[in-house]
Amino acid sequence: MGTPVSTETTVACNAVTTGPISGSHKRHLEIDGLSIPQRRIELTNGEHLDVYDTSGPYTDDTATIDLERGLPRTRDSWRRPATVDGASTQLAWARAGLVTDEMRYVAAREGVDVELVRTEVAAGRAVIPVNHRHPESEPMIIGKRFAVKVNANIGNSAVTSSIAEEVEKMVWATRWGADTIMDLSTGAEIHQTREWILRNSPVPVGTVPIYQALEKVKGDPTALTWELYRDTVIEQAEQGVDYMTVHAGVLWRYVPLTARRVTGIVSRGGSIMAAWCLAHQQESFLYTNFAELCEIFARYDITFSLGDGLRPGSIADANDDAQFAELRTLGELTTIAKSHGVQVMIEGPGHVPMHKIAENVRLEEELCEEAPFYTLGPLATDIAPAYDHITSAIGAAMIAQAGTAMLCYVTPKEHLGLPNRDDVKVGVITYKIAAHSADLAKGHPRAQERDDALSKARFEFRWHDQFNLALDPDTAREFHDETLPAEPAKTAHFCSMCGPKFCSMRISHDIRAQAESDATLLPLEVSTR
Amino acid sequence: MGTPVSTETTVACNAVTTGPISGSHKRHLEIDGLSIPQRRIELTNGEHLDVYDTSGPYTDDTATIDLERGLPRTRDSWRRPATVDGASTQLAWARAGLVTDEMRYVAAREGVDVELVRTEVAAGRAVIPVNHRHPESEPMIIGKRFAVKVNANIGNSAVTSSIAEEVEKMVWATRWGADTIMDLSTGAEIHQTREWILRNSPVPVGTVPIYQALEKVKGDPTALTWELYRDTVIEQAEQGVDYMTVHAGVLWRYVPLTARRVTGIVSRGGSIMAAWCLAHQQESFLYTNFAELCEIFARYDITFSLGDGLRPGSIADANDDAQFAELRTLGELTTIAKSHGVQVMIEGPGHVPMHKIAENVRLEEELCEEAPFYTLGPLATDIAPAYDHITSAIGAAMIAQAGTAMLCYVTPKEHLGLPNRDDVKVGVITYKIAAHSADLAKGHPRAQERDDALSKARFEFRWHDQFNLALDPDTAREFHDETLPAEPAKTAHFCSMCGPKFCSMRISHDIRAQAESDATLLPLEVSTR
Repeated sequence: MGTPVSTETTVACNAVTTGPISGSHKRHLEIDGLSIPQRRIELTNGEHLDVYDTSGPYTDDTATIDLERGLPRTRDSWRRPATVDGASTQLAWARAGLVTDEMRYVAAREGVDVELVRTEVAAGRAVIPVNHRHPESEPMIIGKRFAVKVNANIGNSAVTSSIAEEVEKMVWATRWGADTIMDLSTGAEIHQTREWILRNSPVPVGTVPIYQALEKVKGDPTALTWELYRDTVIEQAEQGVDYMTVHAGVLWRYVPLTARRVTGIVSRGGSIMAAWCLAHQQESFLYTNFAELCEIFARYDITFSLGDGLRPGSIADANDDAQFAELRTLGELTTIAKSHGVQVMIEGPGHVPMHKIAENVRLEEELCEEAPFYTLGPLATDIAPAYDHITSAIGAAMIAQAGTAMLCYVTPKEHLGLPNRDDVKVGVITYKIAAHSADLAKGHPRAQERDDALSKARFEFRWHDQFNLALDPDTAREFHDETLPAEPAKTAHFCSMCGPKFCSMRISHDIRAQAESDATLLPLEVSTR
Repeated sequence: MGTPVSTETTVACNAVTTGPISGSHKRHLEIDGLSIPQRRIELTNGEHLDVYDTSGPYTDDTATIDLERGLPRTRDSWRRPATVDGASTQLAWARAGLVTDEMRYVAAREGVDVELVRTEVAAGRAVIPVNHRHPESEPMIIGKRFAVKVNANIGNSAVTSSIAEEVEKMVWATRWGADTIMDLSTGAEIHQTREWILRNSPVPVGTVPIYQALEKVKGDPTALTWELYRDTVIEQAEQGVDYMTVHAGVLWRYVPLTARRVTGIVSRGGSIMAAWCLAHQQESFLYTNFAELCEIFARYDITFSLGDGLRPGSIADANDDAQFAELRTLGELTTIAKSHGVQVMIEGPGHVPMHKIAENVRLEEELCEEAPFYTLGPLATDIAPAYDHITSAIGAAMIAQAGTAMLCYVTPKEHLGLPNRDDVKVGVITYKIAAHSADLAKGHPRAQERDDALSKARFEFRWHDQFNLALDPDTAREFHDETLPAEPAKTAHFCSMCGPKFCSMRISHDIRAQAESDATLLPLEVSTR
């Protein structure tokens, strides 16, 4: 397994997709002994564009990939400040005014000042999910002042999928731009699957520990105990999980609020905890033991992703009492977690019509001290299963524009089945579109560079550059070639949409040339608004 | 050709897709001698849902389809009021307080009061595009107080495609929900292609007459004349074209405003007229002869779709002086057209980042007397060719929520090639999602019925109903069956995403049942915000 596999090849047992994305190559920005990955897209006019890169060594022609050995443990050699107030976390250090290597790394990666990173982390408005035991990861930051991030869910279930497939899904998802991945495995070999993913993942890995806990009690939620859950969290913490979804806001008294909903409780974690509370007639053990959980998280620097166990699963249930009662509790838990020096994100709703999106962000910020919001979609309508990557991308773009820091992707298979490799790619690309659209709308300093470079290539009929600057160069090229496969069409001043006689862009060039060669052809008076 | 072809079959020369969409059948609402088409989705729990239907007789099991003969000329027998003030248009009649059969038809179709229809048409805030010579069409209304509509572009080009393909694309697009279609053919046999489409189209047909005019002068824009253009318009008017895009707002003096743009002029019509103005050093013949054009339109009741010839073709060019200068002129032309009794829509921009969308609607309404806005997308980013149905659906949903009345679809092939049959379907479904999301957000009275019905089916594990209530039942079923093909899975209380042990919805049912059977299990105090 020492030799990289060629581009786009997949092997069942032990290999993954490697090699650069079309028209680009991996490079590193060397800053203060840190090596920041970038993807350089080379253009045919001699220019180039460097873009944010999440794909790890897999797209590096010079790297040797060995899944058995795992990725290099780069962060093991970084300086780690002393524990502050019982916590060895980015939050504790940021508050103490310490700038960590992780902060310098993400600042260089985003192209922003490191002091912005430190202050946003210190305020709890941004998180850097970096378990000390996941030294293979390339740090990244999640917060509204930074580029909007995308998470891809992977994970086997009782019905289908294998470890090798899941590792390849991780590599595949990060290749196309996933900033973090969540391993949501629920079937057999959860521990081993996660170990393979962590040792080979260049991005932070999130989990939902209650899933594995439930496996340990053979799927009976009423048999869960705090001790079993805690041990599961420690097991995962030791492996290096960077952030964990904890549904500690599903309180006993909130359960009846879901009784008249159209779709009840749709979060798996939420329904498990609700069932437990009702069976035991007790408050949730996640809530009553939350402080102890914080102490564990503080030791490893695991970030809370406080789960929205009562999120709406349909348009009808959006923004209801159950959802916002839980959100208020998540706000209380945020304060507790931060008092332990633990980083916190808040998970957000799944189905919300467009006119109810803004209120979600407003309330989250108000109730949860502006902790980074991490939303699933939301889906703007329920009526298009098989297209829920699109129904949700509409909501995702809007909620990200309003301030959401990370978007959890949705694939075309949502509500219908487990995503395959193609679905994962479509899901990631769709969510990169939503995230990037929000970056543009929020005025992220570097976002428009890529739009401008692509549009310029389009106007100048540099077809290869247009493909290579695209989020998915391969599909763009393939679609073009369906109608005009010959190489000369790649420099032709027209395409198959209008044909050679009608190209507006060519006429536009003619107009510009004419205007430049003879200024008298243009009228003198120019009216502008 | 007397026998309907079976569902989903396509024949190269003379047949099209017929038969009902899965799980539904065509029915008609009989009101005052008018027969309004609906699609009834039958559910396994004995309920049903009637939805708006654009597909014409092609989905009617009892109809005989004969493409040579064309659809029945139903509207020939409807009462047509006398000409008012020189115009025999829905606008003139609405202003005169007359309620036409077309108004009654669209009111029943939308489920609204006919007086709302008449007043909105009279105010010019809505249009009913119905050329007297297209009696085969089923009237529909475009306006912000009504359901958001979707247009699908079809049409051959010099590079590819045949007449039979284009007729099938029309049938196919309306099957999946296109409310109007535009025939943008630019190649040979334009007249004949359009004739076939018109005689067989149950929805209004739009064109851009300058394309055919340019064919007549062999593609040399400088050889165009008013007379040739006018004769082309009359030729198309006689055939029954319901609305025509006219780029009369591209004034000579606006052309230099595009010189420093990243992507110049991207509208074909816009670039043709710009080239003509510069070559002749004269004002656009569309602008100088606009009154005569209005007289022609008034005779047939053709609706203007005032083209945005200077629309931005990239994020960098959005909302610039060229775009808004033209919009101001379109406002002047709106006033002139309406003074001739002619109905008017305004076309809107192609590439606009999210934060600049609202201004487009605000200005359009302010400058163009709230004439219905008809937008292409807009695309919220330039960086995803091959996914521009998605980049544009984000913008489309947002601009429709803000007040756009009709959305022009974008297919995955946009910027890359001509859409095939699959692309047309994906484009239409994607835009139905955007339109429906906006209907929900605007509180359209009947919009949420379908979301609620589908979500209820989802929660009750009625898989067949969930598929059949979807915008695309076939793909939803296919995706589900990829992992769980067996028939028992269609009633199973789980799916492949979580597997049998983990289904949150099933647990949710258990919770509900438990709560109902023993109220003491629930805590007494219920906290709501």
